[in-house]
Amino acid sequence: MSTSAQIGVTGLAVMGRNLARNFARNGYSVAVHNRTVSRTRALVEEFGHEGAFVAAETAKDFVAALERPRRLVVMVKAGEPTDAVIEEFAPLLEPGDMIIDGGNAHFADTRRRERELREHGIHFVGTGISGGEEGALHGPSIMPGGSVESYGSLGPMLEKISAKAADGAPCVTHVGPDGAGHFVKMVHNGIEYADMQLIGEAYQLLRDVAGYSPAQIADIFRTWNTGRLDSYLIEITAEVLSHVDAGGKPFVDVVVDQAEQKGTGRWTVQIALDLGVPVSGIAEAVFARSLSGHAALREASRGLAGPKPTPLAESEAAAFADRVEQALYASKIVSYTQGFHEIAAGSEEYGWDIDLGEVASIWRGGCIIRAAFLDRIRTAYDARSDLPSLLSDETFAREIAAAQDDWREVLVAATRQGVPTPGFAAALAYYDALRAERLPAALTQGQRDFFGAHTYRRVDREGAFHTLWGGDRSEVPA
Amino acid sequence: MSTSAQIGVTGLAVMGRNLARNFARNGYSVAVHNRTVSRTRALVEEFGHEGAFVAAETAKDFVAALERPRRLVVMVKAGEPTDAVIEEFAPLLEPGDMIIDGGNAHFADTRRRERELREHGIHFVGTGISGGEEGALHGPSIMPGGSVESYGSLGPMLEKISAKAADGAPCVTHVGPDGAGHFVKMVHNGIEYADMQLIGEAYQLLRDVAGYSPAQIADIFRTWNTGRLDSYLIEITAEVLSHVDAGGKPFVDVVVDQAEQKGTGRWTVQIALDLGVPVSGIAEAVFARSLSGHAALREASRGLAGPKPTPLAESEAAAFADRVEQALYASKIVSYTQGFHEIAAGSEEYGWDIDLGEVASIWRGGCIIRAAFLDRIRTAYDARSDLPSLLSDETFAREIAAAQDDWREVLVAATRQGVPTPGFAAALAYYDALRAERLPAALTQGQRDFFGAHTYRRVDREGAFHTLWGGDRSEVPA
Repeated sequence: MSTSAQIGVTGLAVMGRNLARNFARNGYSVAVHNRTVSRTRALVEEFGHEGAFVAAETAKDFVAALERPRRLVVMVKAGEPTDAVIEEFAPLLEPGDMIIDGGNAHFADTRRRERELREHGIHFVGTGISGGEEGALHGPSIMPGGSVESYGSLGPMLEKISAKAADGAPCVTHVGPDGAGHFVKMVHNGIEYADMQLIGEAYQLLRDVAGYSPAQIADIFRTWNTGRLDSYLIEITAEVLSHVDAGGKPFVDVVVDQAEQKGTGRWTVQIALDLGVPVSGIAEAVFARSLSGHAALREASRGLAGPKPTPLAESEAAAFADRVEQALYASKIVSYTQGFHEIAAGSEEYGWDIDLGEVASIWRGGCIIRAAFLDRIRTAYDARSDLPSLLSDETFAREIAAAQDDWREVLVAATRQGVPTPGFAAALAYYDALRAERLPAALTQGQRDFFGAHTYRRVDREGAFHTLWGGDRSEVPA
Repeated sequence: MSTSAQIGVTGLAVMGRNLARNFARNGYSVAVHNRTVSRTRALVEEFGHEGAFVAAETAKDFVAALERPRRLVVMVKAGEPTDAVIEEFAPLLEPGDMIIDGGNAHFADTRRRERELREHGIHFVGTGISGGEEGALHGPSIMPGGSVESYGSLGPMLEKISAKAADGAPCVTHVGPDGAGHFVKMVHNGIEYADMQLIGEAYQLLRDVAGYSPAQIADIFRTWNTGRLDSYLIEITAEVLSHVDAGGKPFVDVVVDQAEQKGTGRWTVQIALDLGVPVSGIAEAVFARSLSGHAALREASRGLAGPKPTPLAESEAAAFADRVEQALYASKIVSYTQGFHEIAAGSEEYGWDIDLGEVASIWRGGCIIRAAFLDRIRTAYDARSDLPSLLSDETFAREIAAAQDDWREVLVAATRQGVPTPGFAAALAYYDALRAERLPAALTQGQRDFFGAHTYRRVDREGAFHTLWGGDRSEVPA
């Protein structure tokens, strides 16, 4: 058994297999291992010519095949399978070795694992990887957490196999300690949910209000993809919408309109709630997916009263489509504002010291939400790392100012015509709430003081107060 | 030491003290206990004349003072303090005894505690109690979980001390096994958040769009309180809005507009996400509170572009106020639809067999969301226990049909004038999504299949499919 492999990958389902190939194709010698040995053999048989693979049939052989300090990438299902693999391999490792978890783990699990393994001198590097199968093979966006020391050893390899942004920068950085990488990957996915929901709403408006066909809408998305909305998701939206099935029907019309989801969108919202960060756009995207899946409830609700959209005259459709682009772009800025707020709050809560500009930078390529837009976010944070929010960036503020009349009119049309736009609406409400001089939260505090003596603060005096609502309604210090 | 007390209360902060007094005032002998003995003595000194109290200074005395099977009510802070009290008392109890946890526990904790104590033959009765201090004393709404057997023993006492609905029915029922009571209490609070947020939005619209003063708005709420919105929260809104501080200013204008929150609203959303239930109205209410508290972010956002509301002409204000009532009522129906959906889903998930009509019934009095409206929900579920959702009830569907033109126009005004109405907007989007023939979820599934091979179903054929997007775009069975 050779002991020369520079990195090892265990778990050779499609993501693991492609990641191993990516390392090999970039000149690294890669030990490969899988619980079912046939998969290991298949990989080497089929792709052995791509580089230097070392097939290991047992855990012991796998570990023995790695040069020290060992770099062991785990590509198994998040949750118990990850713990099982750690339990199997950790006893075989030595201080200084690294376990890189490339699954979609919950960052709290990553924090626990990192703490436990650190006691044995082993670096646990929770690593977000985005880009799907294709990204894993040709260059994903990589979000490693874990120790600075581990990044010193892993960084150069990850930089080599990662996607590159348009300016050539590798789409990988040391995000921060322990669970920071998986946290940032989670928020990436939350933003992805929001992006997809907003695109869905734009599509529905172009279909029902502007009266365009899927093929025409595909063309509109293609045009948008040459402008500021230039992104992978807009690009594939055009592909999906222009696709016609074997029966000659628009593909989008033959697919059951019930969206599925895995855990990361939901987690993004749940953690945001714990952190006290409003992520209403992401939440609406997650809810929209679950709503779509409640088939019986939807069936029972089809008869509910409401307008049926009347498509605009053809002469007005193009202008409306331009407005939808403004609404989509403005709502997108809000989604990213919320997502980056969550990352900032997580970084603060867990002491990760995450560089938000770097996060935007490594999302520019490889990952699902890759977009020209992210370069502008990077620029915004690079110009001012203490930016209170993306909306405080002059460029974004100016763009949203220019977009907002259209944004509002698109929502007016949707509201009157009965087209559901939870994402657009949540984004606008967030924007208007943030800029409001006064919010009805003052009334809420008054009510809370009334029924629960929860006290309130005053705008003109320090301290907390309570009004004797059941008595003479005088005010007392709390 | 007497051994005659029929029930015991440990934890004599304001809620515990008032609950103990409520039992005593209803003729029960009540053992009282508190970690700090002075509080126990103070209770007996101050309120001893109200009934038969047995002051116990030690845990042992407290337990000895109770008739068997013992009924021991724990009124301490949710979380670790509850576990500490259980650890202290459980060893002193015998099979058949009951521990009633009246705090705002997370239902998952309640399930764990119930399971652990059941092994020792002790009934753990997680019990939601709503109504604040006043309710605890004069009659709260009570939501006990736990075993049927424990309810046989406790039920009559709880029925006696509980609030009574207008028809005389006690506001208590055996909600279901283990954590069912605390789950239902959690959703009650989530709905309360939504109710308060919707009221806040209505207030802001009446203020900024209709141009009314707080005193005028108080009058409007007073009028609404005589109609279908008749409820405790509408009533106290009028009280808060009509209140003028010592300096002669409207109270609502001198309160800092940053709303606080405890955990139950957040939990309601987090659990709904786990259950796959869209509770967008409740989520927006929770987010609105956290947004209001981000003072620095709001300060940095005040300069963002947007319309300033121009109040309507006086002649149009009253008609607009009527529209706001319609919007508030329709949005409220949606909030309750979402909340009851969550209870139904929780009941299904945990096998609680909760009677939704009964839940509505016991919320008719005593609790914060008590309202005439709940009697109508009870009627809806009593008429049809398998109602797919509240929106499927004919009466509610008819009312929302009648309300919707106004509902939409109120949102149009808010959208154009820049008044944030996240709750109203989320409610309408939910309504329009539920009744939609087709949702853009089909596009979402197409995108997911494109970038992640997540597959999709077809409207015209059974099975799961994948399109070879990177190849010839033919379709293959998944």
